[in-house]
Formats: sequence, C-alpha cells, structure tokens
Amino acid sequence: MRTPKKIDLANIPTPVKKINFNGCTFFIKRDDYTGTELSGNKIRKLEYLLHEAKKLDADYVFTSGGEQSNHARATAIAAASVGIKSKLFLWGRERNNYDGNLFLDKMVGAELMFLNLDEYKNLDSHIATEKKKLEKKGKKVYVIPEGGSSALGIWGYINFVKELKEQIGEKRIKGILVAAGSGGTTAGILLGLHLYNLNFKIFAVNVLHSPEFMTEKIINLADECNAKYKITRNIDYSRFEVIGGYSEEGYKHIAPEKVDVIREFAGQTGIILDPAYTGKAFYAYNELFLKGKKISSVMFLHTGGLFGAFAKRKNYLKQ
Amino acid sequence: MRTPKKIDLANIPTPVKKINFNGCTFFIKRDDYTGTELSGNKIRKLEYLLHEAKKLDADYVFTSGGEQSNHARATAIAAASVGIKSKLFLWGRERNNYDGNLFLDKMVGAELMFLNLDEYKNLDSHIATEKKKLEKKGKKVYVIPEGGSSALGIWGYINFVKELKEQIGEKRIKGILVAAGSGGTTAGILLGLHLYNLNFKIFAVNVLHSPEFMTEKIINLADECNAKYKITRNIDYSRFEVIGGYSEEGYKHIAPEKVDVIREFAGQTGIILDPAYTGKAFYAYNELFLKGKKISSVMFLHTGGLFGAFAKRKNYLKQ
Repeated sequence: MRTPKKIDLANIPTPVKKINFNGCTFFIKRDDYTGTELSGNKIRKLEYLLHEAKKLDADYVFTSGGEQSNHARATAIAAASVGIKSKLFLWGRERNNYDGNLFLDKMVGAELMFLNLDEYKNLDSHIATEKKKLEKKGKKVYVIPEGGSSALGIWGYINFVKELKEQIGEKRIKGILVAAGSGGTTAGILLGLHLYNLNFKIFAVNVLHSPEFMTEKIINLADECNAKYKITRNIDYSRFEVIGGYSEEGYKHIAPEKVDVIREFAGQTGIILDPAYTGKAFYAYNELFLKGKKISSVMFLHTGGLFGAFAKRKNYLKQ
Repeated sequence: MRTPKKIDLANIPTPVKKINFNGCTFFIKRDDYTGTELSGNKIRKLEYLLHEAKKLDADYVFTSGGEQSNHARATAIAAASVGIKSKLFLWGRERNNYDGNLFLDKMVGAELMFLNLDEYKNLDSHIATEKKKLEKKGKKVYVIPEGGSSALGIWGYINFVKELKEQIGEKRIKGILVAAGSGGTTAGILLGLHLYNLNFKIFAVNVLHSPEFMTEKIINLADECNAKYKITRNIDYSRFEVIGGYSEEGYKHIAPEKVDVIREFAGQTGIILDPAYTGKAFYAYNELFLKGKKISSVMFLHTGGLFGAFAKRKNYLKQ
C-alpha cells in the first residue's frame, strides 16, 4: 500500500458527543468542528489535495460547486492560508449581495466565475479555457474536482476511520449516516473500514444526484483510489447503502418539514444543520434511526456547512 | 485556593499557529476554534457559569450585550445544549430580518428583549423585573453578567493560561494581545499568569469602554475573583496594559482603514476577524507589534466572533 502525504489544516480529532433528541440518545461525530471559517468535512480532503498543489508549485487552485458550496469556500480559505490563489466555478448567478459561503469566498480574495445550469454542464471546458489562459501567462494551475472527491482527496476520510475507531472504543455503534453530495466522504469511509478493520455500515443520504448515480460514483471513486493505492484486495460494497427519497426538493432548496426538524434539533441541542447536506441527512436519520427508539446504534456525521444556513435564514426562521 | 467545577463545552486545547502577514511572522492562539456555532472565547467562561446554573437547577439563564453579542449567542447555544432556556437582553432594536448572531439566537429558541441605549442603562432593573415574573411562575433564573465576566466566569481564562503555557514551550513569546470588551478575558489571563508562573505581558485593546474604565474593571474583576478563590497573595497589575485609541468609531461600527487590514489579513491567511473585537484589536496589533518587524514576540489571541462579520458583510466587501 502507498500512503500519500498531507499538510495540517484541520483541527482534529473532532469530538464524538452523546446527544439526546426527542427522547432518543445517539452519538454525533462533529466534523463541523474541524475549524471555523474552514469548518466541515472538506478540509480533511484538502489536506491531501493542497499538499499535492504545493508540491507541484501551483500558483492557482481551481474548484467548482453550487454557489453556496462549502467545498469551494473551504478550498478558497485553505488555499489562502498556504499562499495559493483560488478561482471558483460556481453554479449560480452574480449578485450584488454576497452572503453565506460567498461572503467568505470574496473575503479571502477568491476569483469567482458564475455559470448557469447549461454552462455548468460544460464545466470541464470552462475550466480548461481558464486554465489555458493562466498557463499562457506562465502560471501553474491545480484543479480540484467538485467536493474534493478524487482518489487522493478521499484519503481524508480513509484516515477519518482510524480517528473514529479510537473514539468509539467499547461503545455499541454499528453504523454511521452521512450526507452524500459528491460521494467522496462515503467512498473514503468505505475504504477506511477495510484498512482499519472496523465492522460498520455506512448509510449515505444522497442530496444532489439520483441514488443510482450516487451508488455508482461511490463505487468508482473507491475503486479508483484502491487501484492507485492498493488498500485492500476486495472492497465489500455491501458495507454502504445509498438512501434516496430525502432530497426531492432539490439541492438548493429545503422542504418546510425538514426546516421544522432542523429548528427543533437546534432548540434541543444548540447544534445547527445546513440546508443542503446535514439538514436533509438528519431528517432521514430521524425518520429511519431515531423515531420511536430510546437508543440508536447508528451515529450521525455532522459534516459542517453552517454558513449555508445563513443564506437560508429567512426559511429557517419563517421570516 | 478553591477551584470551581465546570462542564465540558469547549473543543480545547485550541491550536497555536505560526502566521506570516506582510513579511512579519507571529503566533496566533485560535480561540475562535473552541467550536462552531459555539465558537469564541465566551465558551470557556460558560463552562463554569453553566455548571453553577445546572447545580442550582435553573430553568432559565439571562444574559445581556449588544444585539450582535457573541457572548449572548454563545450563552443561548450553550444553554440549549444543556437543556436550559435562555433570555437575552440586547442593546438594539427588533428587526424583521435576523442576521449574524441574532439568527443563531433565534434558531436555538432564545427569547429576545431589545432595549434602546437609555433602557440598556437600566439593564439591571429590566432583568430584575423579568426575573420576578418568572419566579412567580415557580421558575428559577440564573443571571450571567455581560461577557460572562464574573469572578466565576473568568476561571475560563485562568485555566487558559495553563493550556497556553504548555503550548508555548520554548517559543520566544513575551506577551499576548487581546480585545477587551467586558474585561473578563484579560482579568482571567492576569490571574492565570500568577497561578501558573508565566512571565508574560497582556496588552488589552479596549473596544467598548474608555481605557480608564476598562483598567478599573479589569482590576476589580481580578480582585474580586482573587478574594473569593485565593489564587495569589499579591496581584502584579503592571502585567497588563490597556491600549486605547483604536475604537474611536464605536463598538457597533468599524472604520474603513480597519476593514482594509481585515480584508488584507483574510486574503493572506484565510483567517476572518470580526468587526467589534478582533478586527479592532488586530489593527492595533499590526500598528504596534507587526509593522516594520520580521518577527513579533507578542502573540495575538483570536477570540472568535465570525458571525458578527456576516452582519457587516456589506462594509467588508465594499458592496
């Protein structure tokens, strides 16, 4: 097995906390505690990706996502912290009032290119064009895929399993539920379960693509990483399951009944969930693993995204 | 010496990081990393205060501050996390669009009472009236002073010195610069320097009251805590200095030249400073301890407050 190198960006290990919600007790792994501006699950991936970008002497990193992308914001901030410029290709439209993640993107000096849905479908060609322009000026560009989900990036979540295993100890936990956007967190955990011998099941709530597409993407990412780094002889794909049906309103929206649960959870625990990922995943988690139970043996992964909540604050507060 | 008890709320120890800004190298202690919703310096104080509130079986905690008060927000969230209701007395006015810290206050179900400046001057009587109302209904109320700055609360920063001393090790650091609003952080560190034998100077940049008032408040807080807990025989007051002249625009505002430094710092480091506390303190720090130097032997304490930046995002981005 080959093990890639990383730089230190994340404030880890993140805590595992016991929570009580509506009479049910469960554990939450707080990966929203990896930092503040730089919070959430994306930093674990960026530790590997930016190590490579630095090694290759990149002047720029490019990445992409929705306009409130947590990954794009984390990339912009992490790049600034290591002295690399960033350019973000965002599905959305230019506004004159930057809120949520967009505010932070602008604060750290990221260059933004807004693409409409049709343009975003040709993301790769937009990236290639801009990359060429900079290369003509003698600049080196390092491209990070959406969500940081590449064979290298998902090492952040392979290593996560080592950290988690030590924290779980004798607790009776049989699985973890995560929000799945680009699939990298799930694919990383899946490989980590093999590498660190943890008998665990991953439930991935898809929030962006169809369950079928998501399943395939996770398998492909895990395969690609395993082919490159030789982690395990056989990947047991039955150790993850994509749960569909909880993002019918679409990635950029959130249904009122989910906001109700988000508000109820915040009031009982002080923990804020975001509208695109953890809010939807927690709604599914509550339906499937908490309701009617006193203890849940499946834990919840809080992958961050607080800033996205600010951009939806009118929905959250019914203002 | 008596040592009070606490509950665990903060994600500590927080990291000490080496930073380069405009060619000068210095260390920053990232107390903005104590959590996410619950981030900043206030949580260290709340660990002691909410322990007492729980011990006294409080149904409600009351606290007060500016409408974008980080302390009030941290109190609301921490109280929610331990199952206590909160009521916040805020200097400001009711709006129909809750942003920044106010958004989070509302999300965790805090009750808000807005007071204008004249009313806020009679804060104690407003608190007493509301307390009586609840007590008539058989509820117990625990009142936390502005900024959590009481003889008990400042134990959070007495203990902070123990953590800091271990992290500093052999680094050549002679002092720390902090923003001072209610004075509790400075008073706590001052006592901690005595308790843990750290030869250090504290520079406190006042952001709310006059330097004279601030100096007196810090001395009084340290005296009160020392009288109660018998930490040291004599407090050496020469170990802190209040630096005035960096908040002439007022607590709720921030001057354009300070915003320029905040933006420059964010672009070079990925670190966001808030408009009320750390933005002003860092401006002073840059003027006094960074400009024209290659290395600074005084470190900077980042006390958090990111959410306040969101409420000032139009100034920050010159939108």
